[in-house]
Amino acid sequence: MAIKNAFYAQSGGVTSVINASACGVIEACRKYSDKIGTLYAGQNGIIGALQEDLIDTSEESDKVISDLRYMPGGAFGSCRYKMKNINENPLEYERLIDVFKAHNIGYFFYNGGGDSADTCLKVSQISKTMGYPIQAIHIPKTIDNDLPFTDCSPGFGSVAKYVATSTLEAGLDIAAMSATSTKVFILEVMGRHAGWIAAASGLAAQKAGQPPHMILFPEVAFERARFIDQVKKTVKSSGYCVVVASEGVTYADGGLLSGSLVKDAFGHKQLGGVAPALCSMIKNTLPYKYHYAVADYLQRSARHLASKTDVEQAYAVGHIAVEKALEGKNAIMISIQRTNSESYSWTLGEVALDRVANQEKPMPQSFISENGFGITQKARDYLLPLINGEDYPPFKNGIPAYSTLQNKLIAKRCKQWALS
Amino acid sequence: MAIKNAFYAQSGGVTSVINASACGVIEACRKYSDKIGTLYAGQNGIIGALQEDLIDTSEESDKVISDLRYMPGGAFGSCRYKMKNINENPLEYERLIDVFKAHNIGYFFYNGGGDSADTCLKVSQISKTMGYPIQAIHIPKTIDNDLPFTDCSPGFGSVAKYVATSTLEAGLDIAAMSATSTKVFILEVMGRHAGWIAAASGLAAQKAGQPPHMILFPEVAFERARFIDQVKKTVKSSGYCVVVASEGVTYADGGLLSGSLVKDAFGHKQLGGVAPALCSMIKNTLPYKYHYAVADYLQRSARHLASKTDVEQAYAVGHIAVEKALEGKNAIMISIQRTNSESYSWTLGEVALDRVANQEKPMPQSFISENGFGITQKARDYLLPLINGEDYPPFKNGIPAYSTLQNKLIAKRCKQWALS
Repeated sequence: MAIKNAFYAQSGGVTSVINASACGVIEACRKYSDKIGTLYAGQNGIIGALQEDLIDTSEESDKVISDLRYMPGGAFGSCRYKMKNINENPLEYERLIDVFKAHNIGYFFYNGGGDSADTCLKVSQISKTMGYPIQAIHIPKTIDNDLPFTDCSPGFGSVAKYVATSTLEAGLDIAAMSATSTKVFILEVMGRHAGWIAAASGLAAQKAGQPPHMILFPEVAFERARFIDQVKKTVKSSGYCVVVASEGVTYADGGLLSGSLVKDAFGHKQLGGVAPALCSMIKNTLPYKYHYAVADYLQRSARHLASKTDVEQAYAVGHIAVEKALEGKNAIMISIQRTNSESYSWTLGEVALDRVANQEKPMPQSFISENGFGITQKARDYLLPLINGEDYPPFKNGIPAYSTLQNKLIAKRCKQWALS
Repeated sequence: MAIKNAFYAQSGGVTSVINASACGVIEACRKYSDKIGTLYAGQNGIIGALQEDLIDTSEESDKVISDLRYMPGGAFGSCRYKMKNINENPLEYERLIDVFKAHNIGYFFYNGGGDSADTCLKVSQISKTMGYPIQAIHIPKTIDNDLPFTDCSPGFGSVAKYVATSTLEAGLDIAAMSATSTKVFILEVMGRHAGWIAAASGLAAQKAGQPPHMILFPEVAFERARFIDQVKKTVKSSGYCVVVASEGVTYADGGLLSGSLVKDAFGHKQLGGVAPALCSMIKNTLPYKYHYAVADYLQRSARHLASKTDVEQAYAVGHIAVEKALEGKNAIMISIQRTNSESYSWTLGEVALDRVANQEKPMPQSFISENGFGITQKARDYLLPLINGEDYPPFKNGIPAYSTLQNKLIAKRCKQWALS
């Protein structure tokens, strides 16, 4: 079998550990250099393949590649670019194959969430249609934890750890201030459709009554009066109230809290966000001083507080993707399987991409406590192992020492391509 | 000399290392147990003294006290309570002395910022007037870094490290996404009157062009058109723009950005914040996708990312306060002195409280770059040593393992007291 080159790209919102997956892919390719040629990385994800902007990863030293394990962001650039349906725009898929053919690429490793799984599947399909063999392997990644057929998605555990730790730490702050100052604190976290991340904040509480006192899930219809009432009760019983709110919290009619209330001086609706909206409600009804934080990108880039379990899984799914490819596998997603729940252990598996693509795994209703404001023991049992362990990056001059890649582009061989 | 008891209280906004100062005070008291009696801590700061809610720290084990070094928040409760001028409300000061007398307290250790320094001074003055000797020692603490006559204030270095690290990490995230998604990211940090914390974000940049691309200081009058123009220029040259904004950013007329623009659906002005206000401006003028984070309490409670230098200084100022008291010192604040700037070293000193009280140390104008959007080498030289070193707390179950104190109150001996 003639040696083929490989292509790797990062897709969608980056995580603090997506580069650990890149590290796994690249180190595996180097390990099997007798069976696999050069690994090219797409500059800015799949756009790099379409526009033939291919980064030659062989130009990077072993040290720099090994440092990728510690680096947040997306080392080669990611993108939000959904390829059209193959029937609508077959040329785009054909272009991919043309570029892969021009560079003798036989392996396609795509590191992303649900949309990317779909792209990955399409690439394997078009490669058959066009008679140019490509093995397409999807490497799971998403902080949203919504990929099906895998116990969890790399990227989620570290956000979960960040959110649980931040809730714990801020909770101690407010507890100390509440006698004379701030009584309500709202932390807004990511999660548009599912409350996985918000749920993780519940791990901050070691016993009943500890923060977070309320979690607002996208899965539970928001009722203003119930919210205000619960805040009031909590301040009365605990002296203060810590709320963790998912950005995707909605009213029963499906209207988002964020952006729905707030207009700027020019009368334009503005970003707003859930936390300011909730604070506004408190301001108008309760006599309590409040504060809010919006974790936004900090939560998904906080590599300094990554979960060791998450880092190990992110690395492993990247590494094994290459081995699966060398075994001849195609059109699969690497999955993580929980083999023991009591004393957590996991192994890697695979799942056919046509089962994965374009599906979102919802958070089980059984994870949400009866009053809708907390998590159940079942949720704790699932979540706890995913945030376990620390894996600090090296620091220099007081901040993490993140390497810089050269990201050298190779010479183009195809004609120019404009994105549609 | 008969052995006297001691009193310690935490005041104002807590920091991630104020408990390290408490640890220093308590461990020093235990070390000199032949010269000093029981150390009582005020429950919720000075209010604990006024209301005779005194926590007996001798009930806590050595292990729990040693764990205080790692715990954010304020272990005994803090307060925002400014004692009135002594001429206006002498009874309040007399009450303090009554409580101290009832419990044979001869040492008053007050851990806070500028206001607390003033209270501390007043306590030493009234003790003379009333003929009951109290030695009052002020232990510096404030994330605002605005105490005079000290090189820095414990609490600041850790916030600075958090903000620099978060800016670096989020910057890598946005860099990876900017080709097809978010181009502008705004991080709102604390600092109402001075830009010390915002300035620290500048340490994230190792060379020109790296994030943060713009810092908005309270010291520089905000001009909307210049801001928008600079964002535009930066996105053109770097592909994306990371902005760190102080909550205290103001227009030339003194109007705050935060809260000035935003009204909720009921027409009430709302909290708003600087970051949403800036995003609103971008939304109305530029075609860029933006995101914002508000660090709020996360920045000052993030003990998991404390600066080792800061923790050591916080502990040391607490420990030496007890030794200074035993040397007979009174009405002083402990200060930190930079003894070597090249290879940073520091020592502790003292400064008379009547020089410190009610003064704010501004950030030098020479720390701000010529265009008003960055920091100078002078600022870097000052800031860098303060964020140096890591000092991780122990973790258990994926989150920091913070001890819980018993906080046992002692029996009251004085009559009830209502706060005025």
